[in-house]
Amino acid sequence: MTHFSPVTPMIVAQLEAIVGARNLSTAVADRQLHAQDMSRFAPQLPEVVVWPETAVQVANVLSLANAQRIPVTPWGAGSSLEGNPIPRFGGILLSLARMTAVLAVHADDFQVTVLPGIGYKDLNVQLARYGLFFPPDPGANATIGGMLANNAAGIRTVKYGAAKDNVLRLEVALADGRLIHTGSRSIKQAAGYDLLHLFVGSEGTLGVITEATLRLTPIPALMSAVMASFPSVAQAVEAVVAVRGSGLDVAALEFIDAGTAALLARENQLDLPARPTLLMELHAAHPETIQPGLEMVRAICAEFGAERIHATADPTERQRLWHARHHTYETWRRARPEVQWLITDVAVPISTYPQLIAQAEAAMAAQGVGGFMIGHAGDGNVHVTLAIRSAEEERRVQAVNHALVQKAIELGGTCTGEHGVGIGKAAFMPQEHGTAVDLMRALKQMLDPNGILNPGKIFPA
Amino acid sequence: MTHFSPVTPMIVAQLEAIVGARNLSTAVADRQLHAQDMSRFAPQLPEVVVWPETAVQVANVLSLANAQRIPVTPWGAGSSLEGNPIPRFGGILLSLARMTAVLAVHADDFQVTVLPGIGYKDLNVQLARYGLFFPPDPGANATIGGMLANNAAGIRTVKYGAAKDNVLRLEVALADGRLIHTGSRSIKQAAGYDLLHLFVGSEGTLGVITEATLRLTPIPALMSAVMASFPSVAQAVEAVVAVRGSGLDVAALEFIDAGTAALLARENQLDLPARPTLLMELHAAHPETIQPGLEMVRAICAEFGAERIHATADPTERQRLWHARHHTYETWRRARPEVQWLITDVAVPISTYPQLIAQAEAAMAAQGVGGFMIGHAGDGNVHVTLAIRSAEEERRVQAVNHALVQKAIELGGTCTGEHGVGIGKAAFMPQEHGTAVDLMRALKQMLDPNGILNPGKIFPA
Repeated sequence: MTHFSPVTPMIVAQLEAIVGARNLSTAVADRQLHAQDMSRFAPQLPEVVVWPETAVQVANVLSLANAQRIPVTPWGAGSSLEGNPIPRFGGILLSLARMTAVLAVHADDFQVTVLPGIGYKDLNVQLARYGLFFPPDPGANATIGGMLANNAAGIRTVKYGAAKDNVLRLEVALADGRLIHTGSRSIKQAAGYDLLHLFVGSEGTLGVITEATLRLTPIPALMSAVMASFPSVAQAVEAVVAVRGSGLDVAALEFIDAGTAALLARENQLDLPARPTLLMELHAAHPETIQPGLEMVRAICAEFGAERIHATADPTERQRLWHARHHTYETWRRARPEVQWLITDVAVPISTYPQLIAQAEAAMAAQGVGGFMIGHAGDGNVHVTLAIRSAEEERRVQAVNHALVQKAIELGGTCTGEHGVGIGKAAFMPQEHGTAVDLMRALKQMLDPNGILNPGKIFPA
Repeated sequence: MTHFSPVTPMIVAQLEAIVGARNLSTAVADRQLHAQDMSRFAPQLPEVVVWPETAVQVANVLSLANAQRIPVTPWGAGSSLEGNPIPRFGGILLSLARMTAVLAVHADDFQVTVLPGIGYKDLNVQLARYGLFFPPDPGANATIGGMLANNAAGIRTVKYGAAKDNVLRLEVALADGRLIHTGSRSIKQAAGYDLLHLFVGSEGTLGVITEATLRLTPIPALMSAVMASFPSVAQAVEAVVAVRGSGLDVAALEFIDAGTAALLARENQLDLPARPTLLMELHAAHPETIQPGLEMVRAICAEFGAERIHATADPTERQRLWHARHHTYETWRRARPEVQWLITDVAVPISTYPQLIAQAEAAMAAQGVGGFMIGHAGDGNVHVTLAIRSAEEERRVQAVNHALVQKAIELGGTCTGEHGVGIGKAAFMPQEHGTAVDLMRALKQMLDPNGILNPGKIFPA
């Protein structure tokens, strides 16, 4: 896999013939902008950056690279957290940033067909006039292509699903330059093998998504936010299990620890006590239908000892709250600029969430590691975010990460709920999947026999 | 693919050593019981029927069959409609009927782990005590394994999704006898390739599902049924588009034609006028929340000219209604015993549903073919069911089926919404999927190089 060919001047000329001179750069500045995602993995300069404008250009770049054994790393917005788009073996960095068109809004069908480079936030701005939105919301302005490639998820996934649940049809460029389509615009489909979900979550290692038809959701008429503060982490996470077990269809159910609540309150002028806190959102089409849900949430939180429960339907307050939650990581970075952070990402069956959180607290204490904890608790997903100030501390932080992953897999969960495997989780794949990893390798070999697509990801070296 | 070996007495002895004498039969009666599904395709006797009791036995049967080049056709309940489990090349019929255990109910997680042979209705009876159910409901008492293998769906799929949307983890026996697992009990997963959805819907041609962890839903506290009668088919199906477009979260949205409404009314003592009719169901957790939805449905139906709208929350009436709807086909068969029927199955984007239905009516008129029309209209899915009384009429009926499939694909839909490809839809795969069929064939070749798994299905000959 490492016996790749260099990007020679002749290759650059051939690439230029495919994408046009304005869509190619070998300038160091451009290469540096595509050397690293938001993770802590070592940057790696690509040899050339190309910005194709059409699916056929993408396919032709792959065809050339495949024939010449040159690695190709697809790039969306570079907002990944596990090194997913770092071009580890140099080669061609294939940015989808110039393929941003909305091709068709099928408003009556709650669908939209887009090119992969559009940011999901930008897309949702365009969709607002139709009263529709694409629900998965990872926070950063990830591209649709990147979200699909990593099966991204977020705060509202508890109600609306992850990226994989909100896509109906894809066009994909294969390593050998073939363009295929899979799925259809029908929401019901039973015609042969589900290739669509094979490409979703494959992190650009099996093909490059060049077009997607997404499933949209009507913007709810009413959104109500609830904040509940608990005396202890254990009580808060037990309340999460109870809220989910009640069958209540919450649209968000987030856990934040006491330190984060204090920080967000201070930095965002939010009225949040410095306590383990649950942030929830309820969606409804009618005023009559939101109140019973709010009452149920109140009752459950009270039962688990909540000291304070505050509900709001005020859009400004709700938006400030979620904006703050979405920018937790940046807020911590500003608050402690001397520190580097490892953002972990594991997910478990919801009934075992308290065990996972207890393990996180125990492992942090045992290793003498600090940090903060936020989680898409309604999904059993947590991001324990650990502070690193030295190489020695990094070893202890990695020990906590390792302990978390072990516990998550032991509890029937997964080493990654939404950040994908990339570089960071590759070592855990055999433990989580057993011999199914052999099958994944066989698929990779079948679809990308020369190993040119995003090499060095997903599989342990 | 057709160069298979026969099941010799020595093979029978080896199979007997794997599954035990009581779990194997070469008796003609047993072979006849597994020669045909509910479709009109020619029956084919298997050479031997085995009923393994464990995943290891399944794997060992496959391992032996693979080494000896003997076809293996998995069998659930035989309720398929496209010839999916007909053993076209004889060989081994592998019935999962004796693997029916519920291994674990994870009530707090809304999950259950089962063996594949359990019927979904039987499972739902067992789950009722936990207040939970497995929502996909194809009607016949299909097995969970069969539903997953065909990606079955049904009346409530419009709200709760198809089989593929309600499964988290699988154990699968591969053609070479390997047992793998894929997915996890975490509802959020982003760890590598989605093998789970590759096996779901593969109709037993890539592997045999030996265990499944399913996602469950709390039984709604309140269910309300609405029946609306329209002056014309066009008005009824336009109302479907409007109901869906309103964003109302209906749990069922079925269309039945005037003739079927009359028949169901007569045979089931239902108060249904002989008119194109929509049957709907709304689910809610609170009494306050169901009324606004009902009012919205009433308003939309009235806007599209509904002559009569009847809503009921009475469980007995509701159950009688859905029982009647689920048994439409049997009711028609009893009413016209001299007739054979072809049940078609196409699905389209909901906005194009009126065009599909208009095409169905036009094609039936053009070919002079009779029948009836029922559809999971909320999903854009329709089953036009056509009467056949002679070989000559069969040709005309097939012409209608062909015209329907062409129209569905032209409208951005699919040749099968929920019955799968089996034998009946294989010819349409290249048209629907283009060159992606080559990729499906490559997957088949990779996972089943000797072609022993359910040969003669999905791919055109």
